Amino acid sequence: NMAVKNASSPPAPSGPSSPSPLPTITILGSGDFSRALALRLLRGGFHVVVGSRRPKQAAHCFPHVVDVTHYEDAVGKANIVFLAIRREHYSVLWDLKHLLEGKILVDVSNNRRVNQYPESNAEYLSSLLPSCTVVKGFNVISAWAMQQSYPLDASTHVYICSDSVWARQQVMELARLLHFRPVDMGPLSWSRDIETMPLRLFPGWRGPVLAAVALSIFFFSYSFVRDVIHPYVQSRQSDFYKIPMEVVNRTLPAVAITLLALVYLAGQVAAGHQLYYGTKYRQFPGWLEGWLRSRKQLGLLSFFLAAVHVLYSLCLPMRRSERYQLLNTAYQQVHADVESTWNEEEVWRVEMYVSFGVMSLGLLSLLAVTSLPSVHMALNWREFSFIQSTLGYIALLIATLHGLLFGWRRAFQWDSYRFYLPPSFVPALALPVCSLCIFLLKLCFGHNVQNIKGYETVVL
Amino acid sequence: NMAVKNASSPPAPSGPSSPSPLPTITILGSGDFSRALALRLLRGGFHVVVGSRRPKQAAHCFPHVVDVTHYEDAVGKANIVFLAIRREHYSVLWDLKHLLEGKILVDVSNNRRVNQYPESNAEYLSSLLPSCTVVKGFNVISAWAMQQSYPLDASTHVYICSDSVWARQQVMELARLLHFRPVDMGPLSWSRDIETMPLRLFPGWRGPVLAAVALSIFFFSYSFVRDVIHPYVQSRQSDFYKIPMEVVNRTLPAVAITLLALVYLAGQVAAGHQLYYGTKYRQFPGWLEGWLRSRKQLGLLSFFLAAVHVLYSLCLPMRRSERYQLLNTAYQQVHADVESTWNEEEVWRVEMYVSFGVMSLGLLSLLAVTSLPSVHMALNWREFSFIQSTLGYIALLIATLHGLLFGWRRAFQWDSYRFYLPPSFVPALALPVCSLCIFLLKLCFGHNVQNIKGYETVVL
Amino acid sequence: NMAVKNASSPPAPSGPSSPSPLPTITILGSGDFSRALALRLLRGGFHVVVGSRRPKQAAHCFPHVVDVTHYEDAVGKANIVFLAIRREHYSVLWDLKHLLEGKILVDVSNNRRVNQYPESNAEYLSSLLPSCTVVKGFNVISAWAMQQSYPLDASTHVYICSDSVWARQQVMELARLLHFRPVDMGPLSWSRDIETMPLRLFPGWRGPVLAAVALSIFFFSYSFVRDVIHPYVQSRQSDFYKIPMEVVNRTLPAVAITLLALVYLAGQVAAGHQLYYGTKYRQFPGWLEGWLRSRKQLGLLSFFLAAVHVLYSLCLPMRRSERYQLLNTAYQQVHADVESTWNEEEVWRVEMYVSFGVMSLGLLSLLAVTSLPSVHMALNWREFSFIQSTLGYIALLIATLHGLLFGWRRAFQWDSYRFYLPPSFVPALALPVCSLCIFLLKLCFGHNVQNIKGYETVVL
Repeated sequence: NMAVKNASSPPAPSGPSSPSPLPTITILGSGDFSRALALRLLRGGFHVVVGSRRPKQAAHCFPHVVDVTHYEDAVGKANIVFLAIRREHYSVLWDLKHLLEGKILVDVSNNRRVNQYPESNAEYLSSLLPSCTVVKGFNVISAWAMQQSYPLDASTHVYICSDSVWARQQVMELARLLHFRPVDMGPLSWSRDIETMPLRLFPGWRGPVLAAVALSIFFFSYSFVRDVIHPYVQSRQSDFYKIPMEVVNRTLPAVAITLLALVYLAGQVAAGHQLYYGTKYRQFPGWLEGWLRSRKQLGLLSFFLAAVHVLYSLCLPMRRSERYQLLNTAYQQVHADVESTWNEEEVWRVEMYVSFGVMSLGLLSLLAVTSLPSVHMALNWREFSFIQSTLGYIALLIATLHGLLFGWRRAFQWDSYRFYLPPSFVPALALPVCSLCIFLLKLCFGHNVQNIKGYETVVL
Repeated sequence: NMAVKNASSPPAPSGPSSPSPLPTITILGSGDFSRALALRLLRGGFHVVVGSRRPKQAAHCFPHVVDVTHYEDAVGKANIVFLAIRREHYSVLWDLKHLLEGKILVDVSNNRRVNQYPESNAEYLSSLLPSCTVVKGFNVISAWAMQQSYPLDASTHVYICSDSVWARQQVMELARLLHFRPVDMGPLSWSRDIETMPLRLFPGWRGPVLAAVALSIFFFSYSFVRDVIHPYVQSRQSDFYKIPMEVVNRTLPAVAITLLALVYLAGQVAAGHQLYYGTKYRQFPGWLEGWLRSRKQLGLLSFFLAAVHVLYSLCLPMRRSERYQLLNTAYQQVHADVESTWNEEEVWRVEMYVSFGVMSLGLLSLLAVTSLPSVHMALNWREFSFIQSTLGYIALLIATLHGLLFGWRRAFQWDSYRFYLPPSFVPALALPVCSLCIFLLKLCFGHNVQNIKGYETVVL
Repeated sequence: NMAVKNASSPPAPSGPSSPSPLPTITILGSGDFSRALALRLLRGGFHVVVGSRRPKQAAHCFPHVVDVTHYEDAVGKANIVFLAIRREHYSVLWDLKHLLEGKILVDVSNNRRVNQYPESNAEYLSSLLPSCTVVKGFNVISAWAMQQSYPLDASTHVYICSDSVWARQQVMELARLLHFRPVDMGPLSWSRDIETMPLRLFPGWRGPVLAAVALSIFFFSYSFVRDVIHPYVQSRQSDFYKIPMEVVNRTLPAVAITLLALVYLAGQVAAGHQLYYGTKYRQFPGWLEGWLRSRKQLGLLSFFLAAVHVLYSLCLPMRRSERYQLLNTAYQQVHADVESTWNEEEVWRVEMYVSFGVMSLGLLSLLAVTSLPSVHMALNWREFSFIQSTLGYIALLIATLHGLLFGWRRAFQWDSYRFYLPPSFVPALALPVCSLCIFLLKLCFGHNVQNIKGYETVVL
């Protein structure tokens, strides 16, 4: 166990029983990150040696206690060497090969974009210098965050990987001493993922957001033509004031329920694929795999749009236009001498669809909460599947009923068609009704295909 | 430290400096999980040997590079042996006892239901084969998730436990290589918990949900009888349209505030128990312990129902019935030639109870957010207790005031009683008022019982 | 690797292959925490020895199987010694110095307040007894939580640090056996942070909450004077009923948007500081650093108040006063024989500002969700910065437009000034407009100061 004990001895300079000289860490490169790392190591109680191509110029950028010297000199002074130079300059290490032998080389580099090179920087380095132990880490920390004594905004987690367990433990211990929180990611084959981490910009959200935008444009135009253009063309009635709220509030629920249906259709198409090929071991085609992976994002977008729809709907009675119309109706009712215009069917329709709307938002909010990483992690497979599949289908059903009750008989009344276009709830409910029918079919005949098990792929 | 170094050498086959043959892993059993695990191990760069009772038939289900052979043969070829067979067949291992000696045996089994057997599968296995090192793990991963190259829906966390630290570290390193995230759970006594993990279906929610359902049925019936049946019986007035929204919206706040009171009553009953017995070290009876443990769930259900109640209330002015009644009132007011019906008391009452309602929902939402696992973890005991206890009691107080102001004097007016039943806010506020009174008593006399300290048990 | 193997052997008493006597743990001190820890160790299968100054009296508080004895005697019986005595009594350990040599000393102590002593208890202990290995841990667990067989409310995470990796691993393994979840915090220099953990009471929230309270008082008084006092003074009109909802609902959005502006002004002032000194390496002054660190809290408070503002606004049409006024207007309209009072400008203004209001709440809710610890952790720097900076500025812009559209021309109309005070949206929008102007300037001239990179400090 000597090695592990040694692992702890460098980071323990403040212990009263260690009158030994300060442990030394070398950094190759003298850029921004090198400077920030040097400052942090100094605060952690280390002696820092910086290797630079032009040590005299570089020395001005570092505190005096930092030893800025040539590469060859710097490498010889420590067992842990941080590599703060770009991948393009790794070739200079070739000359230091014999000096680096047996040392721990910490690669902190990042690329400018994903998949810039065929292999990760750390794996390339490891193939270049097979006699060194390469550790990947600290690349998710910016020079700015590295320099702060207290984490301002950034997370303090650093992801460490290496093929040598011993080297990994040493670097993790070092990270702890610098007040970071190391995460053991295992072998160097993880380095590709770790190098991708700081470069991502919501890769999983691109498709779902594009789908939502495309659907929004479609439904907005549809409702705009029907609710604003049509009355203007027919009777020169200027209803343009409806654009900011009413047309938007027609668009939102249509997009939300279509996205929710897409969540469940993904699983159904996957099940169909498995039934068609009679096996669950056949790889799905790329588009289907992508669709399946986007279900969480589609579901969250659906919930977000549904919530905004609810807000818009609740704001409707607050509008000035509503008030003017109500007062106008009151005036007309008095003049027509009609005491009450109570219409039992209308009353029931509205009470029912509002009630279903509230319920479906309530259920969707449960689905959304279980998508939070920490809640998701606290659930097992059965619980997650119960929420996302069982409650999800119920939410889809209730939301569809909400839409159907809102539409009522208008799909079958000729006077609600404008420019031959049916009311917007008709295209909005097409996919949800379709998905619910497939679900019903599966409920009825599902036990026949039980033996093809793979389609228990959970939804959302 | 050789052992730890060795631990790292099997998972490092892709390193450029390892011209050694592929490390080998054995799997006993040839079912679904075995097949999925074999595929994943192949992708991780391992040589896989599968032990089967009928190797010839089983071989068809595995890729050609997998070596499918007899149990005896398979066990001899690797130091880490995965056990992918059911507990009922563990007896076959008895014959392999001498071959398994000193090997790491990874038990991935699950049972069909909780508490199916007196001891966990892993502990049973360890007692069966005392010369092996048993490691429990990977049982939370389904065969489907195991087979995916990229996590589709499932969490990638695997929980590992073993009495041997060394074996546990080896299996954790293996898990990392297969791109899972191992969680070190410690000794094999954890295996019971780990085996229960995938079987749970919201065990902590059963009681609170049942309580909420029972209360909902009670308050729904109560309000149904008072608000729908009574007018029908008295004057043949058909108010059945009130069921989907008004009756539901009477039920929701009543259940929500009763559940919130139950949260705080639990701690108060526990304190009473400690005062009665004069000690904080006496175990609580089972029902009380269960009640105390359900406080978080009761509180979250209360918040959920309160939020839905708010949504329903906000939807009230949107209804067609509301509009008809308003127009009707306008008509009547014009006909009676009353310019204004302003009632200062009514105005104040409504402004106050709405304002208190908004405030109590705001406070409850803070309590709910701190129940999220990641937020909870970021709080210490003092902070959690401040939110849940201090803010919680204030929320209960304000919610009760909201209810009292809503009810106003109607509890004391004979004409608001129907079928001798008081308005529904009276039974709804019974428990909250009770809990607040106990809290007041504690505030006044609490310093006398300071020495019995245990009742600082935090609420919600 | 013998040491690590030994580390695992004490916590494995239940293994079938260990007929060895029970492993022994010593606790010094016989108070509440000692008692609770002893019970938990017994349940974990350990033999417990308690050292006390008066063993005879203390023995009554412990179960019979616990060996309660003198300090000297107790220390000799185990290799791991828990120290459950106050820092003030550490001097008694001086006499046990020779007996404690080479043992692991676990310091579980807490202080009464932050910064009570110049160095942490554990570091003080380590300097007192340099021949012992001091491990800090378990101090975040209360005696009450320690005693529970199942975690009732508390988190089960315990934070462990020590300069000896080996001792730390032993104590972490022990924690796992007691069914806690150890978190490896690294060297003993972390002990200060660990000891502060249970003492914090929302330290980061004090400033932002104070700012919110001060702003609330200012805007409440402002609106109270303008909307309640002024009509009373001018025309004896009693509008006091407006206090609980209308005045509050003027205050909330004003405070919310000012807090949101403060979030972005912090980064802008920091950028100005860097531009002024021409370097990003100069330390910010204390107040600015504090302000930068409070941005998350300011943003969350802003979101919370904005959400409550939305709730209040949605409740407005529900009020009795609104109803009376509407009926009164209907009456007057009928009597004046005006069929419609439609005002196109008013209609557009309201539709637009309501729509912008909904949008800005939607965006703010996205910012709030990414502030949840588990969501934050799942985002990298680029993603977090995109949400908090790009979306944040858009939210501020839309919220400001919401306010400007609400105010419309009233800032320039003399009759909307009361007591010479402009409408409350004017002071409320001062800071947001200011911050947006600076942002515009930065957009236009920002490329000139690109070389001073540090001001990419992300906002919120």
